[in-house]
Amino acid sequence: MAANEADKLITSDDHEHPANLIPSLCAKFWTLGWVTGTGGGCSIRDDDLVYIAPSGVQKELMKNTDIYVLSLSAQNATFTDRTYLRAPPCHKPSQCTPLFLAAFTRRGAGCCIHTHSQWAVLVTLLLEQAAATHGGGNPKVFEINNIEQIKGFRRGWKKTGNLGYHDTLRIPVIENTPHEEDLTEYLEAAMEEYPDTYAVLVRRHGVYVWGDDVHKAKTQCESLDYLFQLAVEMKKLGIPWISDIPRVAPDRA
Amino acid sequence: MAANEADKLITSDDHEHPANLIPSLCAKFWTLGWVTGTGGGCSIRDDDLVYIAPSGVQKELMKNTDIYVLSLSAQNATFTDRTYLRAPPCHKPSQCTPLFLAAFTRRGAGCCIHTHSQWAVLVTLLLEQAAATHGGGNPKVFEINNIEQIKGFRRGWKKTGNLGYHDTLRIPVIENTPHEEDLTEYLEAAMEEYPDTYAVLVRRHGVYVWGDDVHKAKTQCESLDYLFQLAVEMKKLGIPWISDIPRVAPDRA
Amino acid sequence: MAANEADKLITSDDHEHPANLIPSLCAKFWTLGWVTGTGGGCSIRDDDLVYIAPSGVQKELMKNTDIYVLSLSAQNATFTDRTYLRAPPCHKPSQCTPLFLAAFTRRGAGCCIHTHSQWAVLVTLLLEQAAATHGGGNPKVFEINNIEQIKGFRRGWKKTGNLGYHDTLRIPVIENTPHEEDLTEYLEAAMEEYPDTYAVLVRRHGVYVWGDDVHKAKTQCESLDYLFQLAVEMKKLGIPWISDIPRVAPDRA
Amino acid sequence: MAANEADKLITSDDHEHPANLIPSLCAKFWTLGWVTGTGGGCSIRDDDLVYIAPSGVQKELMKNTDIYVLSLSAQNATFTDRTYLRAPPCHKPSQCTPLFLAAFTRRGAGCCIHTHSQWAVLVTLLLEQAAATHGGGNPKVFEINNIEQIKGFRRGWKKTGNLGYHDTLRIPVIENTPHEEDLTEYLEAAMEEYPDTYAVLVRRHGVYVWGDDVHKAKTQCESLDYLFQLAVEMKKLGIPWISDIPRVAPDRA
Repeated sequence: MAANEADKLITSDDHEHPANLIPSLCAKFWTLGWVTGTGGGCSIRDDDLVYIAPSGVQKELMKNTDIYVLSLSAQNATFTDRTYLRAPPCHKPSQCTPLFLAAFTRRGAGCCIHTHSQWAVLVTLLLEQAAATHGGGNPKVFEINNIEQIKGFRRGWKKTGNLGYHDTLRIPVIENTPHEEDLTEYLEAAMEEYPDTYAVLVRRHGVYVWGDDVHKAKTQCESLDYLFQLAVEMKKLGIPWISDIPRVAPDRA
Repeated sequence: MAANEADKLITSDDHEHPANLIPSLCAKFWTLGWVTGTGGGCSIRDDDLVYIAPSGVQKELMKNTDIYVLSLSAQNATFTDRTYLRAPPCHKPSQCTPLFLAAFTRRGAGCCIHTHSQWAVLVTLLLEQAAATHGGGNPKVFEINNIEQIKGFRRGWKKTGNLGYHDTLRIPVIENTPHEEDLTEYLEAAMEEYPDTYAVLVRRHGVYVWGDDVHKAKTQCESLDYLFQLAVEMKKLGIPWISDIPRVAPDRA
Repeated sequence: MAANEADKLITSDDHEHPANLIPSLCAKFWTLGWVTGTGGGCSIRDDDLVYIAPSGVQKELMKNTDIYVLSLSAQNATFTDRTYLRAPPCHKPSQCTPLFLAAFTRRGAGCCIHTHSQWAVLVTLLLEQAAATHGGGNPKVFEINNIEQIKGFRRGWKKTGNLGYHDTLRIPVIENTPHEEDLTEYLEAAMEEYPDTYAVLVRRHGVYVWGDDVHKAKTQCESLDYLFQLAVEMKKLGIPWISDIPRVAPDRA
Repeated sequence: MAANEADKLITSDDHEHPANLIPSLCAKFWTLGWVTGTGGGCSIRDDDLVYIAPSGVQKELMKNTDIYVLSLSAQNATFTDRTYLRAPPCHKPSQCTPLFLAAFTRRGAGCCIHTHSQWAVLVTLLLEQAAATHGGGNPKVFEINNIEQIKGFRRGWKKTGNLGYHDTLRIPVIENTPHEEDLTEYLEAAMEEYPDTYAVLVRRHGVYVWGDDVHKAKTQCESLDYLFQLAVEMKKLGIPWISDIPRVAPDRA
């Protein structure tokens, strides 16, 4: 595609256009500590087109001209020799690309966010520590229940309604790999094993969160980060993540 | 009410108009971590009219056109089949509505704020923990004294003046329910039992704070959040919330 | 003074004018958590005139028209029946006024800042705790040494130069009183006992910090808050505030 | 150099010009808590010219007219009697100047950032504490591995590529001196001993971080601060900084 044709893909006056939304979202994520030091990223799918933040850019300074565009239907979209409809010459494609594509193709997500939030990292470290030192607990899944914010999550893939207050939110944890692209197979396996999850934690690394659209991905990512932070503080105060509390009213869900 | 008539209710150049204030307050609350992931909310009463933030909206992006308007004097205002003077077609009404209405009708409040602040949640968890593990303490009330910020609270309903430095601030705690609307009866019962309180904590959920007007609700909510955060830090450092310290000067209050 | 004459005192296009500076400083302090819930405040002296933030105003929303103006040379300036050159009719004067005046008249300060910073409160609680539980330590003075940020403080009243890295910064702590105005005599006594200090902590309340001008008061207040926060974190990690470390280079101060 | 000639050095419409970049970076650093109370600073080299933030200025209020300019090739550039091409009359040169120059002349850096971040200070205190109380560990180097964010650092001086996930990031720690200029010899010695490092911690003081250009210095400084904060939280939770975890995929680096 000619450069000036390609630039039309990322040029719009509409601030809801993916090429405008990604920079404004990334700037917000930077203030939340999610994309420190060029870590993390964000991708939006609009039908066949996938918009991706580049690698190595200061996330609070990103512009629409920094955005990569990929066609999902192109035969090589998911392979390492994939070609981009638009590729800014001064950048490198995000190493997160195959992970974003997994959320789009395997889950039909409309947006995927990857953060390096310290709360996500600390939760994975605490799970590892618990399994190693107490001989108990499964280090491969984060579980929490009986917290109102859990209601911010969908019950699951193609299911209607959200999780209830007494439900247990489960987020699978995969081990980190030296190269981000190598995470893809583990991410996809976690999607298989936890068909209802909207997020996967990566040990000592961060979290991938997706949603049907930008709104859902962003608000679920916020709710998750809230729960991760709360979980770390609960651990400091000796309060368990899973509790069995009496129900004061019937669950009509 | 016709849609264009209804829109007049939320259209004003005055940034002190409730339909403009709620979005600006919610944006501020978002930066404070009070309304993460669309949680929490805010409602303002102006005589007979009640303005309410909708459910499920990103609170830092809210606009006046997102606001619901309800008539307090309408016969069905407090019932589940209540009708709205204005209801944005793209939104759902806030599940907090009956709780906001309780503050307006039972206490004559002019503004009610609901946060999911982690400090509020942690305080309710610490009270639960203390009752369960030490066999002591009443998990159904948060108490703190001898902190200057306590003076930010009114002495109570229809009473003049504020709490003094040596007074004990008491905030009742109710148990969470699977459905937010089901909290209403417990909130109302807490209002009965603690006639002077301007706030009710909800275990593992957050806090409802009200005031005679927006200024008082907002500043009391800030002072409470300050005290909740301080209380959590005090607990980490082994400092009790209630103390019996010598008085260095007479309390003239 | 006629109202329109009085308004001239707080009307200026110069954003360095005290009536413009106090609102911009207070807005900044609000984001730092220093003046939550209308707590805390700020006052600037310009020759004979003293500009003071009012009581009970949301600090991030303050305007120049909210500012009180007092004449220092007026006979009753420091007494409770003091008259103001300008007093906004909708507000109450700050209860901190006599404390600000003490800094201006006893120390010749040009600016005084009062914060309710949680770090300041926690430091006073930790000093109280140490004296009560370990039987050691003087709860009436905060001391820290061998931290670079200490160099942000003047050596003392009418002395040239700043504290050195190995010097011990000492901030006296006074007990809180039910009424803020009653703190004045204790603040003045602490000024007598610690003639070099530029700040006084108030137990379970906050801190008063002053300086020769706005720049010095504000930067010393920032440095102090930094040290209070660091001190709390050091306590959590078991690191003492006072150390005796070997000197790697001569102190030429 | 005549004053009006000198002012041309710091006058540009390009917001990427060093005299514009330093103020905008410093304002950002202030919000991150890196340059509290006029502490810390930043310098950019553009070929022969070195632009330096002055001493004692409120970092969030800095303007281009506050900037010092030095010629690297001038014979006395690195000596204490160095002359400036531009020196704002109302300011004092930064005491960090010889340390910035060391990064430029010894490492060919294009930008050097100095922060007083509390996380940096706490990490140096924890290293000191570990060496003193457990008799183990080298207090003169901070080491962490198996954290994704480590990949934000270059492998080293004139080396291509970045550190890998399983690599150990090592940041030397030098002892603080009463006068910042006296740090220079120790900083240079640390550069000799750790030829691959892009940063040096200063005990009880902060950190110096440099990079080939502003982008690299700033993003490496962010990644380091992230790791320092994470390390402090890990210590609170009893999680070691160095681990020996099984590799789930080959390291192709």
